[in-house]
Amino acid sequence: MRLTKQTNYAIRILMYCAANEGQLSRVSEIAKAYSVSDLFLFKILKPLVDNGIVESIRGRNGGIKLAKPTHEITLLDVVQLTEDNFAMADCFDNDETNCPLLDYCALNSALREALTAFFNVLEKHTIATLVADRPNITALLGLDLIDVAPIKA
Amino acid sequence: MRLTKQTNYAIRILMYCAANEGQLSRVSEIAKAYSVSDLFLFKILKPLVDNGIVESIRGRNGGIKLAKPTHEITLLDVVQLTEDNFAMADCFDNDETNCPLLDYCALNSALREALTAFFNVLEKHTIATLVADRPNITALLGLDLIDVAPIKA
Repeated sequence: MRLTKQTNYAIRILMYCAANEGQLSRVSEIAKAYSVSDLFLFKILKPLVDNGIVESIRGRNGGIKLAKPTHEITLLDVVQLTEDNFAMADCFDNDETNCPLLDYCALNSALREALTAFFNVLEKHTIATLVADRPNITALLGLDLIDVAPIKA
Repeated sequence: MRLTKQTNYAIRILMYCAANEGQLSRVSEIAKAYSVSDLFLFKILKPLVDNGIVESIRGRNGGIKLAKPTHEITLLDVVQLTEDNFAMADCFDNDETNCPLLDYCALNSALREALTAFFNVLEKHTIATLVADRPNITALLGLDLIDVAPIKA
């Protein structure tokens, strides 16, 4: 049981933007900081932009920034956008299972209860809490060194 | 994010044995009930037998049965035996991650907290609660029809 790479990097993108608050972040710089390709990050960005988590500003001096305050973006928001599904077992999808016990087994409800507990914790954590140690994170991402693009008023 | 097929069928094997309490269950009958191969179930059984959840009795009239009472086998016991790992993200494994934020990011602890909440729910549910509706489950598995092997005193 693990989260997808998409989720992992979606969170890292948001942390980068949070550490770089007040500036536009370039996808190429984020890709460099995390040693991945620009294309990989663009794919991950799409649902974040489409769902109002990240704002993308086009143009030569364009870039991305968080579309809302860091404390309003929970880990649950991200995970629900980036994970394909939370079908813990075959029986979460009636079309997929051939389990004869489907209607009388308590496994499905037990797993749903466990998943809800998991989600409830993710909902408590925001991008703000993830970058609480902002000075160190900013330095580790090299944000104190690169020539960032300021957001125009 | 989903549990492996191994976990799913490990739970189904235990439910079968629970529904068939007082009798030895034949792996071939369990495989038939769930429309899978005997070999697939034998592989799943190995860690359950090795860790004292299932007892295997050899011989012509052999079979398997639960090695402890149904209310003493929690879903957490099963999941911890059958899931490969619970590394929710790269940063759960220091050797695998190249994330520059490793030492200052709160994601790892947030995910560990969520996973603990997930485990705590699984620990509350036992094989006994899964087969609470035993008459229906017994019928659905065809246990009222097959010629079962009684456990010798």
